Amino acid sequence: MQVKLNSDERIDQLYRDDIQIIQSSSVFSFSLDAVLLANFADVKQKSKTKIIDLCAGNGAVGLFLSKKTDGDVTMVEIQSRLSDMARRSIEINNLSDRYHVLNIPLKDSLEYINADSVDNIVCNPPYFENLPNSKKNPNEYLALARHEITTTLDEILFTSQKLLKMNGKLFMVHRPDRLPEILATMTANRLAPKRIQFAYSHPNDQANMVLIEAIKDGRPNGTKILPPIIIYDGKNYSKTIKELLYGNSTD
Amino acid sequence: MQVKLNSDERIDQLYRDDIQIIQSSSVFSFSLDAVLLANFADVKQKSKTKIIDLCAGNGAVGLFLSKKTDGDVTMVEIQSRLSDMARRSIEINNLSDRYHVLNIPLKDSLEYINADSVDNIVCNPPYFENLPNSKKNPNEYLALARHEITTTLDEILFTSQKLLKMNGKLFMVHRPDRLPEILATMTANRLAPKRIQFAYSHPNDQANMVLIEAIKDGRPNGTKILPPIIIYDGKNYSKTIKELLYGNSTD
Repeated sequence: MQVKLNSDERIDQLYRDDIQIIQSSSVFSFSLDAVLLANFADVKQKSKTKIIDLCAGNGAVGLFLSKKTDGDVTMVEIQSRLSDMARRSIEINNLSDRYHVLNIPLKDSLEYINADSVDNIVCNPPYFENLPNSKKNPNEYLALARHEITTTLDEILFTSQKLLKMNGKLFMVHRPDRLPEILATMTANRLAPKRIQFAYSHPNDQANMVLIEAIKDGRPNGTKILPPIIIYDGKNYSKTIKELLYGNSTD
Repeated sequence: MQVKLNSDERIDQLYRDDIQIIQSSSVFSFSLDAVLLANFADVKQKSKTKIIDLCAGNGAVGLFLSKKTDGDVTMVEIQSRLSDMARRSIEINNLSDRYHVLNIPLKDSLEYINADSVDNIVCNPPYFENLPNSKKNPNEYLALARHEITTTLDEILFTSQKLLKMNGKLFMVHRPDRLPEILATMTANRLAPKRIQFAYSHPNDQANMVLIEAIKDGRPNGTKILPPIIIYDGKNYSKTIKELLYGNSTD
């Protein structure tokens, strides 16, 4: 498969799953957040599963899911440069038969996807509120990916709830400093947080990532806090992370 | 100091801080929850500090705080048998000059303690909802300590908010399965969750305890998730827990 790369683009590979992704440091690169989210997401396997990747960026999370599901994956991304990268990565990985990209604002999703039709949603959203005095990246691609400029947490959760079937699941990665707001906004949008997992750079650090699974119209409480993920062992990736990135060496 | 013990009572000691506590397995014994909460609680040190221990039980949490603060500590406990044990433990530890026990229902606290007057509250509440079909301990002392029979999370947080000064801090230990409800109820009661820490029995277990610090009228968000506490190392207590219980061997 020949796919055209722009001059600032490269192809990165997730070794464990043999997935290739077009990246560009001048636009947006997937990071560990995407790998952890794809690993955390307990998506359905069967082929009639309908999965949406909201705030898809260059498509990393959705692409990483390709070995976990035989379902249909639709990526929603507002930035045309990124959605174009996602489209070409889908081609490289020969997933065009069941992967699709919608280059639209997230809030328009319901014009393209039926309400109450989606089994699973994954979302790696902009983490930072768009406060009047918040410092944003001068690179607009990065600013849009990191700050809530074109969408907000409430809009993402409202849209997710509308798209999901009853008991459908949302999997999201976010920053722990907004945890009370995230859980409250989920609850306000009929999404019951069911599994939560925190990632810490080192064992004595504060958490810098949180993974959350929420179920549409699920019962409140019964929330499980999964074992902590420790990212580094000294200066190197921990065993857990190495296995996620490069596969289990005993395989 | 001679204090009378009932036949089913014993005196336990927290070795690190040299605190003695009257315990009874037929009523209620302090557990690791109390030790972790007292360690987590960032109470003010100076003598004019006013601290309340809500749902004090036999007074373990308040007593453990005696080396961290020179302030005034008032224990609120509805069960007379437990509050009597707390009173005698205060005597044994020669803390009667600044420690007091109120044997009252928590909801009556505001008749005895001025509103907006408290610097710090610690609370190790009943963990389980009093659902119609929930299985309760046939031992009434234990049933009241574990189930929300005489008080509820909402009543505890409402009362805490009324008692605390502006920017006063509440420190609570609870079960992680109620995390979304706890954070939402705090927020509804003007208590902003600021520091959260999870405890896990082993590194690959789900969390079984959560410690939360909330600030009255604090700003939302900016929540910190502190490093995970791992309780056991194989079958023994971890180094962290050993140090909490027995002191640092290098001291």
